[in-house]
Amino acid sequence: MADDAGVNTRHLDEIVGYMLRRAQVAVFNDFRRMFADYAVTPTQYAVLCLIADNPGSNQSRIAAALGIKRANFVAILDELERRDLAAREPSNEDRRSHALRLTAQGESFTTALRKRNAEADARVDALLQPGERAMLIDVLQRLSTGLGDADSGSEG
Amino acid sequence: MADDAGVNTRHLDEIVGYMLRRAQVAVFNDFRRMFADYAVTPTQYAVLCLIADNPGSNQSRIAAALGIKRANFVAILDELERRDLAAREPSNEDRRSHALRLTAQGESFTTALRKRNAEADARVDALLQPGERAMLIDVLQRLSTGLGDADSGSEG
Repeated sequence: MADDAGVNTRHLDEIVGYMLRRAQVAVFNDFRRMFADYAVTPTQYAVLCLIADNPGSNQSRIAAALGIKRANFVAILDELERRDLAAREPSNEDRRSHALRLTAQGESFTTALRKRNAEADARVDALLQPGERAMLIDVLQRLSTGLGDADSGSEG
Repeated sequence: MADDAGVNTRHLDEIVGYMLRRAQVAVFNDFRRMFADYAVTPTQYAVLCLIADNPGSNQSRIAAALGIKRANFVAILDELERRDLAAREPSNEDRRSHALRLTAQGESFTTALRKRNAEADARVDALLQPGERAMLIDVLQRLSTGLGDADSGSEG
């Protein structure tokens, strides 16, 4: 980025939304590099972990917890089913929805992904001072909840 | 989001990248609501402000400062020119690039946008404790720089 030398960015550098976006893109790009051999996006990782931690849970409930719109979530599930990582089953609690489970292959895959994610997370931690992670998570949670979010499922 | 009641999200809630994305989407959605009558996206706002603060600056330099890829940046400029907000002029320093300026209409439009942005920013500040904004900006800057970002220009 030597090309941006001398550009006055002071106004933007003080805007929380702008700086959030720059940091989010940097962390997601680092995630994609770290997960390139698994061919997994940040959103796919989140979906796999949430199904693993909530086996048999309703499709619409998982989508809502992730803040992903129904149409986007269906496309993500189609891809995970195609790769034989997750499966949709009839739901007992809602006939219009499905219960979600990982396949046996999806279980071991997700276990491997979590280990890799711990490595990616360590790269973030290396840039933080002691105590900053907890403070950062707390502030981000407050912003998400306070402003109300929706559809974090389109890859950005 | 009553539908996500009882879903175990503990693993994701501790991942900086995931929480960054949730907060960024919430802040951007709030921005879009606040700027609906101006029909301006967060990226268009950033481009307009940076041209205003760096009149006559080189197109590739502005794109690099924003971390936006060339093809995406050209599309954004096309739209701003179509709306008679910005103009490309021949560049003295680089014949392959253009110098960027706001039109008179773009100048007054951007001034109005900055006022609206101060209102949007106040909604973020209302969710922060004293001192948290400076700390948050500092941490986000460190993550962007430390991990290396690129192309924050696709609207997410």
